[in-house]
Amino acid sequence: MTLSTPVAQSSVLFRTASVVWQLGLAVLLLATSGTALAEGKRKVIIDDDGFGMMHIMLLKDPNVEVLGLTSVTGDLWEKQAVASALRGLEIIGRTDVPVAGGAVYPLVNSEALTDRWEALYGKLVWKGAWMKQWVEPTAQGLIGYHGPDDPINLPEGNPKIKASDELAANFLIRMVHKYPGEISIIAAGPMTNLALAQRLDPAFAGLAKELVYMGGSFNPQQMLNNKSASDFAREYMNSPRREFNIRFDPEAASIMSRSPWKKVTVVPADPATATQMTRSLLDRMASFAAPELAAHLRMQAAGFPLWDEIAAAVWIDPTLVRSSEVLFVDYNSQFGPSYGDTLSWRPGYEPGLGERKATVVRTIDPERLEALMVKLVSEGGKH
Amino acid sequence: MTLSTPVAQSSVLFRTASVVWQLGLAVLLLATSGTALAEGKRKVIIDDDGFGMMHIMLLKDPNVEVLGLTSVTGDLWEKQAVASALRGLEIIGRTDVPVAGGAVYPLVNSEALTDRWEALYGKLVWKGAWMKQWVEPTAQGLIGYHGPDDPINLPEGNPKIKASDELAANFLIRMVHKYPGEISIIAAGPMTNLALAQRLDPAFAGLAKELVYMGGSFNPQQMLNNKSASDFAREYMNSPRREFNIRFDPEAASIMSRSPWKKVTVVPADPATATQMTRSLLDRMASFAAPELAAHLRMQAAGFPLWDEIAAAVWIDPTLVRSSEVLFVDYNSQFGPSYGDTLSWRPGYEPGLGERKATVVRTIDPERLEALMVKLVSEGGKH
Repeated sequence: MTLSTPVAQSSVLFRTASVVWQLGLAVLLLATSGTALAEGKRKVIIDDDGFGMMHIMLLKDPNVEVLGLTSVTGDLWEKQAVASALRGLEIIGRTDVPVAGGAVYPLVNSEALTDRWEALYGKLVWKGAWMKQWVEPTAQGLIGYHGPDDPINLPEGNPKIKASDELAANFLIRMVHKYPGEISIIAAGPMTNLALAQRLDPAFAGLAKELVYMGGSFNPQQMLNNKSASDFAREYMNSPRREFNIRFDPEAASIMSRSPWKKVTVVPADPATATQMTRSLLDRMASFAAPELAAHLRMQAAGFPLWDEIAAAVWIDPTLVRSSEVLFVDYNSQFGPSYGDTLSWRPGYEPGLGERKATVVRTIDPERLEALMVKLVSEGGKH
Repeated sequence: MTLSTPVAQSSVLFRTASVVWQLGLAVLLLATSGTALAEGKRKVIIDDDGFGMMHIMLLKDPNVEVLGLTSVTGDLWEKQAVASALRGLEIIGRTDVPVAGGAVYPLVNSEALTDRWEALYGKLVWKGAWMKQWVEPTAQGLIGYHGPDDPINLPEGNPKIKASDELAANFLIRMVHKYPGEISIIAAGPMTNLALAQRLDPAFAGLAKELVYMGGSFNPQQMLNNKSASDFAREYMNSPRREFNIRFDPEAASIMSRSPWKKVTVVPADPATATQMTRSLLDRMASFAAPELAAHLRMQAAGFPLWDEIAAAVWIDPTLVRSSEVLFVDYNSQFGPSYGDTLSWRPGYEPGLGERKATVVRTIDPERLEALMVKLVSEGGKH
C-alpha cells in the first residue's frame, strides 16, 4: 500500500565510473536546474553526531552551499563529533565552513536512565557514546568508552582549526532568520540541537525550507547476505520501530515531529538495508579522490549501511528514491518498553497532537546512490 | 520526622509596621552582613512567568543586585510575561534592569496533550496560559484565553521600554560565565528556560551559586479559613503532589532536578497555605510605597497565597524559615495520572538517576514575611 515513486532506468548504464559521472552530472543538472542554477546554490546546514561521507557529498556538491556544520552527542560525544567535523573539513580543504558545537546530553534521557531501561526491558544493540561492549561478537569496532570531556585522539589526527564560539542551536536560529525559507537542514544524529532551537525560538522550524532527517525505523528487512548486514540486522529484527538517533533522545525527536516544518523528509533505517559501505566502494571512491581524502577513505571501516549517505543523496537527487510514502510521524517519548520507537499513521489515523506529515523514504536505488557518491567524492579533482 | 529549623522569637514584637521595619532591618543586616556588605551586593537573576511582589522585593532590597529578569510561559504567555516585567520595572523606576524573553512553549507538554490528559485523568484546577474557564465558581479572575502572539493589553498599561534581544537561556548562560559561583537564580515559573540553558551548556547549573525555586507540592494543608484559601486548596486537596509550575513543564523540572547545582532550595506550595495577599496587606504596603507603586499595589487582586514572595523572602532572610527538610527531589515526567507530580526521598531512598539534594521549605513565619514585604516596598522612600 505504499505510494511508489518508480524510477525508470537501466542499471546496465552504471557499470563504470566514467559513465556514472556523465550520467550522474546529467541527473544532477536535471534535478536541480530549476532552482539551484537559476537562483544560486542550495543552502544547507548539516547537524550530526560525527563526520562522514554525507558531509563530504554535500560539501563537494558544486550546487550546494553548506552554511555550517552543527554537532551533537550520539554515536560520539559532542566534543569528539566537533573534532571529527573540523578534521573532516581540513581533509577535504573546506576550512571555510564553520562548525558549531551543540548539545552534550540528550534532553531527558541519560546514561543512568538507559541502564535502568535495559534492566527492565532488555539490552540495546547500540548505545553510541554510552556503549561499553557488544552483547554478541560484532564486526563493527568500538571507540572505547570514555567521558564527554576526555582528551580527543582521532585516528585521522586531531584538527588544527577551531569550532565557532556560537552554540549550535543559536547558529541554527541565526541562520534561518538570515535566510528565511531558504535553508535545508539535513540531520543525521539525535535531534537535541534542533529541539533546543525550536524551544528557544518557536519560529525556527517554520523559517527553514525543509528538514531531511536520517532516523527512525519502520519495518526494515535484511536485504544483503553477509556478516555485516547480519550484524546490523540485530538492531531491527526484534525491534523494527527502534533506531539509535531517535532512541538516544526520544523527547527531542518528538518535539521535532510536532514542529511547524514546511516540509519533512524522513530517511529511516529501512532503505539502508539494501546498501553497504563495502571495501570496494571505499577503494573506488578513493581512486577518484584527492590524495588526503583518498587516504582518509581508505582508513574507513567497511560494512556500514549507507544511512546518512542516503539522506544526502535523496536531497541532492530526489530521483534516487524508488518508493516513499506520506505519513504522519512521531516518536514515543514515554519511558517504557517502546521508549523512542517510531510512531506513524496514514493520514486520517494520526492523533492530532501536533505531529506532521512527512515523506518517508522506503527504498532507493543503491547503484545510483554509489554512483553519486563516487561522482561527488571526485569533485574538485585530485588536487 | 522533619528536620526542624525553629526560629526563636515573639510574635508580639511584630504588631506594627514601624517596629517591624526596625527589626526587619536588623534581621536583614544580621542575615547578610557576612557576605553582602563585605563583598558587595548579592547577585540575582529572576526567572518567572510574570511580575509580582517577589520581583519588587528583590529589586528594592539594597543588598541585592538584580542582573536581569527572564520570562517564560506559565500563568501567562511569555510575551505577556515580558510585558508585565517591563511595565513592572517602569512602575518601580528600575528600567536599568534588562528583561530577556524566553521559552514560549514547554519542552514536551502542550495544550493538545493537556486536553488528552484531562480526558483520561480528570480536570486540572489551573492551567495558566491554557486556562479557558474554571470548573467551579472561583474568586480568582481569569485573564481571558488568547494566543501566544496576541496583542498585549496590560491592566497596568503597556510598557514603553523594550526587552533585550538576547534569549533568556543565552542570557542565563552568559551571566553565570561572567560571574561564576556568584549568581543566585530565583525561579518561580515553569523551568523551561533553565532546562534549555542546562542542555545548551552542561556547565550552566554548576556555575550558578544556587537555585531557589518556587514549585512543587509535598503535602499542603489548608491553614486559613476563608473563601480564597478554600479556593486555592482545590489545587492540592486531591492531588497533594501536583503544582502548576512543575505540571506545566515536567520534563524541564526533571532536567533541572538532575542538574549539578551547588545548592538548591525548594519552596513548594506547602508553606504558602499559611499566607495570603490580603487587601489589608496590599493597603499596608501601598501606604508606604512611592505613588506609582502604591497605585499598582492597590489594583492587585487579593487572596493569593504568597508563593513567590516566600521564595524571595527566605533567600533574603533565611531565618524566616521555621521548618525545612533536606530531601532528594525530582519530578515525574511520565505521561500518566501523576504526570508532573513532585517526587521526593529522604537521603538513602533516592533512585540515583541524577536527582539532587534540596532544602525543602516546609513552614515559614507569615508575620515576619509580611513585615519584610512592607519594609522592602518602602525602600527608596515615597519618591
